[in-house]
Amino acid sequence: MSSTAYHTLNPPLRILLGPGPSNVHPRVQRAIQAPIVGHLDPYFGTVMEDTMALLRIVFRTQNKLTFPVSGTGSAGMEAGFCNFLEPGDVAVIGVNGFFSERMVDNAQRAGATVIQVPAEWGRIIEAEAVETALKSQKKVKLVAVVHAETSTGALQPLTDISRLAKQYEALLLVDAVTSLGGQELAVDDWGIDICYSGSQKCLSCPPGLAPFTANQTALTVLQARKHKVPSWYLDLSLLSAYWSANRFYHHTAPISMVYALHEALAVIADEGLEASIQRHARHGQALQAGLEAMGLTLHAQKGHRLNTLTTVRIPPGVDDLRVRQRLLNEFGIEIGGGLGPLKGQIWRIGLMGQSCTSQNVLLCLYALERILATEGHRVEPGISVTTAIKNLGR
Amino acid sequence: MSSTAYHTLNPPLRILLGPGPSNVHPRVQRAIQAPIVGHLDPYFGTVMEDTMALLRIVFRTQNKLTFPVSGTGSAGMEAGFCNFLEPGDVAVIGVNGFFSERMVDNAQRAGATVIQVPAEWGRIIEAEAVETALKSQKKVKLVAVVHAETSTGALQPLTDISRLAKQYEALLLVDAVTSLGGQELAVDDWGIDICYSGSQKCLSCPPGLAPFTANQTALTVLQARKHKVPSWYLDLSLLSAYWSANRFYHHTAPISMVYALHEALAVIADEGLEASIQRHARHGQALQAGLEAMGLTLHAQKGHRLNTLTTVRIPPGVDDLRVRQRLLNEFGIEIGGGLGPLKGQIWRIGLMGQSCTSQNVLLCLYALERILATEGHRVEPGISVTTAIKNLGR
Repeated sequence: MSSTAYHTLNPPLRILLGPGPSNVHPRVQRAIQAPIVGHLDPYFGTVMEDTMALLRIVFRTQNKLTFPVSGTGSAGMEAGFCNFLEPGDVAVIGVNGFFSERMVDNAQRAGATVIQVPAEWGRIIEAEAVETALKSQKKVKLVAVVHAETSTGALQPLTDISRLAKQYEALLLVDAVTSLGGQELAVDDWGIDICYSGSQKCLSCPPGLAPFTANQTALTVLQARKHKVPSWYLDLSLLSAYWSANRFYHHTAPISMVYALHEALAVIADEGLEASIQRHARHGQALQAGLEAMGLTLHAQKGHRLNTLTTVRIPPGVDDLRVRQRLLNEFGIEIGGGLGPLKGQIWRIGLMGQSCTSQNVLLCLYALERILATEGHRVEPGISVTTAIKNLGR
Repeated sequence: MSSTAYHTLNPPLRILLGPGPSNVHPRVQRAIQAPIVGHLDPYFGTVMEDTMALLRIVFRTQNKLTFPVSGTGSAGMEAGFCNFLEPGDVAVIGVNGFFSERMVDNAQRAGATVIQVPAEWGRIIEAEAVETALKSQKKVKLVAVVHAETSTGALQPLTDISRLAKQYEALLLVDAVTSLGGQELAVDDWGIDICYSGSQKCLSCPPGLAPFTANQTALTVLQARKHKVPSWYLDLSLLSAYWSANRFYHHTAPISMVYALHEALAVIADEGLEASIQRHARHGQALQAGLEAMGLTLHAQKGHRLNTLTTVRIPPGVDDLRVRQRLLNEFGIEIGGGLGPLKGQIWRIGLMGQSCTSQNVLLCLYALERILATEGHRVEPGISVTTAIKNLGR
């Protein structure tokens, strides 16, 4: 083997304004390269305890079972479905985007029958439609919705659906991948039984861990399973025995990633969760005002738009991919394209975690305005930036 | 939230001579904290291509499907079983340790009937016993063995079992978690159809990724499945579409961990795979000679001992946990205890990747000898170190 077998690792500096990952704080970069200890080392036990405590703060929960699953947000989703559903169960799932469709796939692979409650991609799931689905079944085991649909930019209200889930004695599972730490979320107060997220969005940790929490109601359901959980790796009974005082060996925890998550959560703790959420609100709304000032149309349902991820319709005649490539190559900015039926229809602009700053709002608007001007969508120069500045100042 | 919500991250420096993780090269520490790019960034594509190419070198394979699964070695194991087994299938599994027992659990969760071929923990699986099991069934879908049993220190010969698997038209699945990069392993030449490992052993990358490879024979079986793979996260058809020129979005790759694995593999490429394997042989055998000179008994079957992980019986009357705690507290050395029936019976001393050095062999022997002397197992001072030195000099 010669040294020509690989390229020297030298990643470019990107401004990550896509649907995640977001930029990482230098404190997290320092933490992730800290010396490795064993996964059963007493020192690592203190890091685990801290991480669980910090996760409880951002999830706003007292749940004992609160820890990062050793995989990306998608592993968190799978842990949610494969532990709490089994063959013969019925699940009601709100389907209004790419990630809620993935939920359906996960629930079906877990052996459940899925009653889909559809809504247009970009709109929220109406509680009435969930109730109709709940009424149509003898027994529904679980209701699932995506709090922040990363594919559409919609923010799902949860309190009415939570009330219905309780009324029909179903568990409520919520995907908080793009909301945890950046949008208001209160697991305990809102009656969420199972909730998961990803490390690389508003928490601004590199991707690779899925913060997860489940309450006692969910654990009682888990203990009453008839079949073994199909996944050994994601079996919450085994995982929670490791993430407990017993430290019962399951798998080798991803030490460096846990260091990184610990530090990313510490950064949020220092800022304050409420301050972080307000920061996401201020910048997300300024970005949206700027985009509208540019004559663009926001995609997600008015009144139910995420602050953390904005979806905007691509103007007619403008080449999706070319604009994104120019943003990347000329400005170092990554934004996301549309998924599924929204491919080529929308862009997705994330302002999450450390990426959520005033300078990124202004640069993104400036860059997009400049590029669109040469792609046939011309507006008064600077209009989007000045509009955003007015909003930021409020 | 106040700054008292967490402890400042400040891990102690450990000499990691347990069953993994092993110590990490400074190049890998630099790589893991490199700036994040998006998982669909063209730059990340080059890192993925490199990583796959480097993994093919260490696996000694031409398999197109060769990439890291986004989870620890255990996720690699689960990917191996849940993709290639389904309800109605029969698997023959050699069971001679903790990790082969885990294989059985995985295969059963995948819905297969398992024919166990048992051997004492510390001994290898005899090919004749595998043949008897193969003969007893109408059709066996898959034969699985652990190449390097991390719980016992045994090194499993593979060529006879591979020949049998071919003869009976079964796939051969091999767990190479504690051998990849440190023991001879030749996926293509040895006729291994499916093989997985972990990043944190002889590759000396932090834990969190599972190098995985499967050949065309295995993929044909995968394509002929009757049921969907139960795990969405580990579905190889979906994963391989992302780890291909199409970059079809599946989940968000753990960017920083892939950087780290890329660099860890580059470190091995620079040393040379064969040189790395020889280094593990030299140091592992010196350690074993030193332990025997200390009057201790090696646990694994003679002639089939791993170089990467040595198991040694705890002398009668010596307190397992106290010795390990003293090694950690007085010398900063982590070694492993026994698992399952070997708990309290053996210690497991790893010399893997960057942890596999002469100074670690000598320090470990010196420290163990010193501690054992005060715990009632007294030998001529220095005998183990001088014996090891003689072996290192050969």
